[in-house]
Amino acid sequence: MKCVIAVDAMGGDFAPHNTVLGAIEAFHESGEFKLLLVGKKNAIIDEIKSNNLKFDEKYIINADEIIDMHDHPTETMKTKPNSSMAVGAKLVKAGEAHAFVSAGNTGAMVVNSIFGMGRIKGVSRPTLTAPLPNDKGGFTFLADVGAFVDSKPQHIFEFAILSKILIENVYGIENPRVGILNVGEEESKGYKLTSDASKLLKDSQLNFIGNVEGNDIFKSTADLVVCDGFIGNIILKFAESIIPFLKSTFKNYAELGLTNKLKIGMVKGPLKEALKNANADNLGGLPLLGVDGISIIGHGSSSPLAIKNMVLRAKVMYDKDIVNKIKGTLSDYAE
Amino acid sequence: MKCVIAVDAMGGDFAPHNTVLGAIEAFHESGEFKLLLVGKKNAIIDEIKSNNLKFDEKYIINADEIIDMHDHPTETMKTKPNSSMAVGAKLVKAGEAHAFVSAGNTGAMVVNSIFGMGRIKGVSRPTLTAPLPNDKGGFTFLADVGAFVDSKPQHIFEFAILSKILIENVYGIENPRVGILNVGEEESKGYKLTSDASKLLKDSQLNFIGNVEGNDIFKSTADLVVCDGFIGNIILKFAESIIPFLKSTFKNYAELGLTNKLKIGMVKGPLKEALKNANADNLGGLPLLGVDGISIIGHGSSSPLAIKNMVLRAKVMYDKDIVNKIKGTLSDYAE
Repeated sequence: MKCVIAVDAMGGDFAPHNTVLGAIEAFHESGEFKLLLVGKKNAIIDEIKSNNLKFDEKYIINADEIIDMHDHPTETMKTKPNSSMAVGAKLVKAGEAHAFVSAGNTGAMVVNSIFGMGRIKGVSRPTLTAPLPNDKGGFTFLADVGAFVDSKPQHIFEFAILSKILIENVYGIENPRVGILNVGEEESKGYKLTSDASKLLKDSQLNFIGNVEGNDIFKSTADLVVCDGFIGNIILKFAESIIPFLKSTFKNYAELGLTNKLKIGMVKGPLKEALKNANADNLGGLPLLGVDGISIIGHGSSSPLAIKNMVLRAKVMYDKDIVNKIKGTLSDYAE
Repeated sequence: MKCVIAVDAMGGDFAPHNTVLGAIEAFHESGEFKLLLVGKKNAIIDEIKSNNLKFDEKYIINADEIIDMHDHPTETMKTKPNSSMAVGAKLVKAGEAHAFVSAGNTGAMVVNSIFGMGRIKGVSRPTLTAPLPNDKGGFTFLADVGAFVDSKPQHIFEFAILSKILIENVYGIENPRVGILNVGEEESKGYKLTSDASKLLKDSQLNFIGNVEGNDIFKSTADLVVCDGFIGNIILKFAESIIPFLKSTFKNYAELGLTNKLKIGMVKGPLKEALKNANADNLGGLPLLGVDGISIIGHGSSSPLAIKNMVLRAKVMYDKDIVNKIKGTLSDYAE
């Protein structure tokens, strides 16, 4: 069966405009998958028409409810059972789609993916794994970046296994070096959670290199850094705020005088090129690993380009057969 | 009595060279305090001579032992009772110095300051408070950045009180807005620690604005962001790695060809100027707030300029009478 990717047309701050545009662009560019748009049918049709796009209406799957950014994630299961997220996740469960992509409420997407698609056997907690740029021009991966807070050591261990499969198969890094985020090099440092999780990681077949610190993330000391979702989420959001911070800082500097303004004018272009790797729009969203299907979660502010890249990322996850590879690996660990 | 500042001549990766140079430069530049250099007397004298500096040997306080970066912080109390850190902290306790400044092992400096100087009544845990640059050209303060991990709600509350006194008196920000680091805006999010600490902050006279997220630190949403020292330390180190990361990224980009190299050549100067606020050398180290004396802790890699600024920061802390202000405020809270 040809790859089928369902996109939450109602998810994100600029839905359905950015979602419909981005998804259809990915569809026309690739041509190698079937696209389903999930959401309020009339709104989707209006968006398609007003942008003069071509898309067969029979591939629009109606969902009457919309989850917004203020909805409490777990409550959406009861209050909005016919949301575009619930419907999209169920398409995967029913085998009518291989992947579901959303730029909506992250927590709600985590919950709807887990309950809609189910977890893979052996996974107690799925993880959101994020690629952060590193100083070698590649990526250092961080997991969990906020699927869950208050992890147990076993969860951190699972984040590492799940992320390793992604990193090897999608990013081509064999036997990735796994570090655990801590406040020093010594094993005795940090939380009990950290030292207990370290023991599990050390006793496994993973390429565990021990503690890494905050300044190791950009330094490519490890390929994968694992931590509880509380700190991972804070680090991810902090990292995402670096480029906006630089922009504001340059703007403040430019406002001090004409010479400064000219200098900053020269800086902008090269800076943008050099930091291409750090542009969230290019990264293709974050996969929720450990659910029984492909679930890709993007920023609420996703541009059409970001949505397009999320859809293409879902296609790569399908091509690399990530879900089955996770199933195979976990059954190895269970043996 | 004239302000007396003791400097750990043996602390840091480039001691005694950088420490002696930086401290004596601050001394000659300001002239408004008495400087004590603490450490191996012969090594300090050699350093002074080989750099043709002028400094009266009677202000060198001998200490035979040196704590290095690999020493376990609490064990140094037993294993190295005559370290430059122990001797420096005791000078403050004995009233022979008002401040002690070190670029040595951070953990050991925290422990030696607490046990050497004692805690101010009402403080269960001192805090390291760090200024991070924000997008308004000012600072957002983060506490605790690693004096302690595994905080209780009361500790987080104390970090806020102690930091508020610093921010108001040294940085002139009246009634600073205090946020608590979390993974979302809603009160129900995050750890139990976070919500319990929030209750204490909300019920206090502090200007508490609720949860802030990782992307709020650079955005100056709050003047002060409080959190457990585990996450604060990771964020601080991550933040400090941003400029080295940008440098590496530009270097990689420049290596791609001559045009790129020329572009990056133009970028360097303005970038450095615009990011002046983010240069750790200028910040003057981190104060350990809540001990009964002025304790300033700097990076192991501190340059002479960084050491100089740490000493001058200690002088400001003295001029602003921070220790007595903390005592007064805590007795208000206790009433």
